[in-house]
Amino acid sequence: MAALNFLSDNVRGAWPEMLEAVTVESAGAQRSYGEDEITARLEARFSEVFEHELRVFPVITGTAANALALSTLVPGHGAVLCRDGSHIAVDECGAVEFLSQGAKLVTLAGRNGKLSPVDIKSALAHFQRGVVHQSQPAAISITQATELGTVYTPGEISALGKFAHDSDLKLHMDGARLANALAYLKCAPADATWRAGVDVLSFGATKGGALGAEAVVFFDPDDARDFAFRQKRSGHLTSKMRFLSVQLETFLQDERWISRAHLANTLAQKLAKGLAEAGAELAHPVESNAVLVRLPDLIVARLRNEGALFYDWEPPRDGHTLARLVTSFATPEDDIEKLIALAKR
Amino acid sequence: MAALNFLSDNVRGAWPEMLEAVTVESAGAQRSYGEDEITARLEARFSEVFEHELRVFPVITGTAANALALSTLVPGHGAVLCRDGSHIAVDECGAVEFLSQGAKLVTLAGRNGKLSPVDIKSALAHFQRGVVHQSQPAAISITQATELGTVYTPGEISALGKFAHDSDLKLHMDGARLANALAYLKCAPADATWRAGVDVLSFGATKGGALGAEAVVFFDPDDARDFAFRQKRSGHLTSKMRFLSVQLETFLQDERWISRAHLANTLAQKLAKGLAEAGAELAHPVESNAVLVRLPDLIVARLRNEGALFYDWEPPRDGHTLARLVTSFATPEDDIEKLIALAKR
Amino acid sequence: MAALNFLSDNVRGAWPEMLEAVTVESAGAQRSYGEDEITARLEARFSEVFEHELRVFPVITGTAANALALSTLVPGHGAVLCRDGSHIAVDECGAVEFLSQGAKLVTLAGRNGKLSPVDIKSALAHFQRGVVHQSQPAAISITQATELGTVYTPGEISALGKFAHDSDLKLHMDGARLANALAYLKCAPADATWRAGVDVLSFGATKGGALGAEAVVFFDPDDARDFAFRQKRSGHLTSKMRFLSVQLETFLQDERWISRAHLANTLAQKLAKGLAEAGAELAHPVESNAVLVRLPDLIVARLRNEGALFYDWEPPRDGHTLARLVTSFATPEDDIEKLIALAKR
Amino acid sequence: MAALNFLSDNVRGAWPEMLEAVTVESAGAQRSYGEDEITARLEARFSEVFEHELRVFPVITGTAANALALSTLVPGHGAVLCRDGSHIAVDECGAVEFLSQGAKLVTLAGRNGKLSPVDIKSALAHFQRGVVHQSQPAAISITQATELGTVYTPGEISALGKFAHDSDLKLHMDGARLANALAYLKCAPADATWRAGVDVLSFGATKGGALGAEAVVFFDPDDARDFAFRQKRSGHLTSKMRFLSVQLETFLQDERWISRAHLANTLAQKLAKGLAEAGAELAHPVESNAVLVRLPDLIVARLRNEGALFYDWEPPRDGHTLARLVTSFATPEDDIEKLIALAKR
Repeated sequence: MAALNFLSDNVRGAWPEMLEAVTVESAGAQRSYGEDEITARLEARFSEVFEHELRVFPVITGTAANALALSTLVPGHGAVLCRDGSHIAVDECGAVEFLSQGAKLVTLAGRNGKLSPVDIKSALAHFQRGVVHQSQPAAISITQATELGTVYTPGEISALGKFAHDSDLKLHMDGARLANALAYLKCAPADATWRAGVDVLSFGATKGGALGAEAVVFFDPDDARDFAFRQKRSGHLTSKMRFLSVQLETFLQDERWISRAHLANTLAQKLAKGLAEAGAELAHPVESNAVLVRLPDLIVARLRNEGALFYDWEPPRDGHTLARLVTSFATPEDDIEKLIALAKR
Repeated sequence: MAALNFLSDNVRGAWPEMLEAVTVESAGAQRSYGEDEITARLEARFSEVFEHELRVFPVITGTAANALALSTLVPGHGAVLCRDGSHIAVDECGAVEFLSQGAKLVTLAGRNGKLSPVDIKSALAHFQRGVVHQSQPAAISITQATELGTVYTPGEISALGKFAHDSDLKLHMDGARLANALAYLKCAPADATWRAGVDVLSFGATKGGALGAEAVVFFDPDDARDFAFRQKRSGHLTSKMRFLSVQLETFLQDERWISRAHLANTLAQKLAKGLAEAGAELAHPVESNAVLVRLPDLIVARLRNEGALFYDWEPPRDGHTLARLVTSFATPEDDIEKLIALAKR
Repeated sequence: MAALNFLSDNVRGAWPEMLEAVTVESAGAQRSYGEDEITARLEARFSEVFEHELRVFPVITGTAANALALSTLVPGHGAVLCRDGSHIAVDECGAVEFLSQGAKLVTLAGRNGKLSPVDIKSALAHFQRGVVHQSQPAAISITQATELGTVYTPGEISALGKFAHDSDLKLHMDGARLANALAYLKCAPADATWRAGVDVLSFGATKGGALGAEAVVFFDPDDARDFAFRQKRSGHLTSKMRFLSVQLETFLQDERWISRAHLANTLAQKLAKGLAEAGAELAHPVESNAVLVRLPDLIVARLRNEGALFYDWEPPRDGHTLARLVTSFATPEDDIEKLIALAKR
Repeated sequence: MAALNFLSDNVRGAWPEMLEAVTVESAGAQRSYGEDEITARLEARFSEVFEHELRVFPVITGTAANALALSTLVPGHGAVLCRDGSHIAVDECGAVEFLSQGAKLVTLAGRNGKLSPVDIKSALAHFQRGVVHQSQPAAISITQATELGTVYTPGEISALGKFAHDSDLKLHMDGARLANALAYLKCAPADATWRAGVDVLSFGATKGGALGAEAVVFFDPDDARDFAFRQKRSGHLTSKMRFLSVQLETFLQDERWISRAHLANTLAQKLAKGLAEAGAELAHPVESNAVLVRLPDLIVARLRNEGALFYDWEPPRDGHTLARLVTSFATPEDDIEKLIALAKR
């Protein structure tokens, strides 16, 4: 029996359109290292989608996107304020600290996976600006959709953006699942990014259905500074970059990035509803494609016994486990029904 | 008119078999971050091809392969001896120095793109081992095939390997074009690598016809040490790693990596022969898929005028230019004939 | 009027004996970079004092001692568990992260400035050992005496030491004020260090009365690994090292480091008693030479108005301020009486 | 018999005036970490001596001065052009590369220890500015007096300064022995530094007679950028900085730094003359306090046999050895006579 795989959206493959686009792009010769025609037109395409002048740099992983973006924004003596469970804090093995030559992540508790200006303000009270003994707050980093499946509203982002800029901080968004957030918000990409004060975006396509393609988007070209050099000397300037670029282009085509994310979100809703009916408690609102749910350990054991794959998000406690289940554009609807049936059994 | 593109082998696309393999692999779900089935069997496949126990880590670029490999082998206070025109020295923007936290590249002149024990010995005379004031020699890095299109024989590598180990140095091989070298040498992969003393290999597939896939191969698993952590925190652990792994697997299938490289080499031979007939002087023996040729500036201008693309390898001097022209499995034979005809005109 | 300076013990100068020893040592020639006679015999002297084989490296600052020690112990993908108010976490501008190439400080709340195995255990629960996505716990760092003026007992250290080693962690002690702690504990230096499980010690002399001299002490010579190279390439190998070494030697002579620290502690006791009589609330037990005291803002203002210097340890709240006042071997007893009188006025 | 120590000028102690100044400064309390009164007035003092607005940062070693200065001037993707035998290239164990996060030292041969615009121009021809594949030339670093005992004239420095600025490069001077150079040149400090185009100076006092004190001097305060943070997080912000500052102040007092350097230079002249009379060949003009001399191996053996200490500057060859002998303000004239007598014997 094939596994019911809810470990992450990145366990799935790529859209057929991606594979076709890559195949088409493979014919003929193109200049390497990003000097090809596809990469050349990518910036215009992103500008159109985001309704703003911008700089785009394709990279292969979200960790590279986040760490290169933040190390460009923040000096080695800088500090980045982020949520304590954020991907950059707990799932990237210190990549930001490494590539930035020692910048510090200041981790804050947040609520439902989100930070607010109050959280940031309270953290900033511990820092004296301009005093060399302390790492200097330089950026806020938020994740959209969050690691807990929730979504920042444009208003929430704007509040953080305003606070950030009033406090002389940059606002970075880890948008590994930005598409899922936008599908939920039904707003223009601009409304949830630069119009709300986001300075730099890690734009994710891999989880949404690329083979492996992310992009760092600077909404103020001046912020890009020495990014291209950082990309090169960390080994992230691919020679056949056109293959990354064509994935990103395909991702954006016909708003398919949003519609496919909408599909994943809908599957998550269905999954959440079914698990709730089975008596599970949803730990956070299900606003994207991740379901954080507290399951009795008996059900956890049964599901796994039957081949279901998903992560414990926290160690089991009091007979229950906080589990995370993630859906994708490619999750078979049948798998969801099977999982729910198993949970209810 | 389409350009006659001889800039590099990485201007070409991927083998049809690569695209098919990726497409097939895209169906279904697989664990991410290298815990998939394809990556799991990759090590066995490489072991079979290289006839030795080993560790394999797929990465996206040759710069990542080289810099991660060397930063694992060499401490921050270490030095790497390499040729002055080697890719790590002049084309990677200090990636080794960056990822190794400051290791030093000691660049030596070499001959026909190759280093010999005599070169190394002479350089080592300037270093006092164990003296904290000096970076400590820790590795030799050679490129196979070389940046100048020549190929180290197994005997030459063995001499370096023996010297390296006698001098308590590791031997690293940048094998971005290893396939071309092996196609020329017609020897077993083992004979030109670990049997000749190579400790760590940057195994290239991208230039040979992958979409973007390289691998770091440690012939002594102990040397791999903390490589996996370095890979992760530099952003080089891809989530859908199976797509890199399947490219590498396809590359090795049916010895196609060698036969396609042989094709590229043959095209380079043809190109070299034609240019020589046109009066050009070959600067180095053409042993792989790169032709280093001294062309009269008049011919250079004519070729470029007609749309030919290739790099000046040195600034023009005395009415001549040292040009580099690279062929690929996908270079149209017709392009070569056209270029030769233009040169002879 | 000269200020009543309680900002820190490092606002004071050096012992007359230090100055004499440096002056005597200045005559004649000695090999540089630590190959002098004084440095040569320093290791034996420390071994005698600490009753254990060890390695000693003199450096100029406590930040250098801590960051070099920890970067030697902990890889770039490592994590150091420490108290949230520890000097390495909040007063060294990311020196550990910088010199270690990105190691992460995991900050824990503690109690009275001290960590316990329970704190560590609870933090470790968030880490999966061997999983490349996460920084790997590699060391615990404690401060003795603590930043809050309290002192770990040998029993408390032993508990941490045992826990550390059982958990495959190293135990580092920031001993910038180790002398004050030992003067309080009245135990052998060994009892509060290696016998209690401390692997590496940042040994402080500057705050105790040197011109500027600290030492990194490895109780297991194997742990020192590449420390000498790290010291050199971070610019911390002084050419006239004998002047640092002679300060350290003088510090240890005739147990004067303990007796002078005892004097400072006694002055702190007197100060604490007086402030308590003036109605102030002691925030933590006064076990070394720092007094953490909650003062009404009216008294704070009055003291400062009359020229008293000390730090707010936390921002003022509810009409009170948590102030830190530090005494030294050279604090005039008269200053303490004046300060108390001002507080009582 | 006491050794005839010509290993380096840093084998000697400190001026009596230094020791007195430090002793005087030790009384009383001062704010720490450079906020003291002596450090406060140091910038004015240096401005007066150098006749220019500037920023001064005291540090403990020349390696720290050089590496912190260059890492502030040059990004991680930058390159520093320097002589192949320069201290930063061969005697600092990669400190520049480490603290700069991977900047590259491009080493050039020079002549008599000096670089010229021709050397730099020729090196720059190998770099394409703005191309991400290559480290980007960002600074020239020269040593004054040179490692070979020669001295750049103001005219030579001006030529380099003009060339540097025309090429968008900064000019750094490693002035570990600047005093010796100025004593030889008999020009104003300004003439051999900022007036000749030097942007940043590593100002040395240790070799000239301090206990341990150097300073980084930025002639354009804007260049200092984040230096203070770099100083702190590399552990180079000393708590009792006043003791470094008072050494620097004493060094400059009554032009004693120049007169004592003149004394050392004179002793070197005497030594060189005597060795020449003994048949030795001077390898370079003796313009400061270092004598580079080619000695027959028989004489080398005899000198060492009688307790003379000096370094081989190159491995012995053809029966001769290039030896370096360094004098200091404190070298006994008697030692010089003894050494000459031994050489002549």
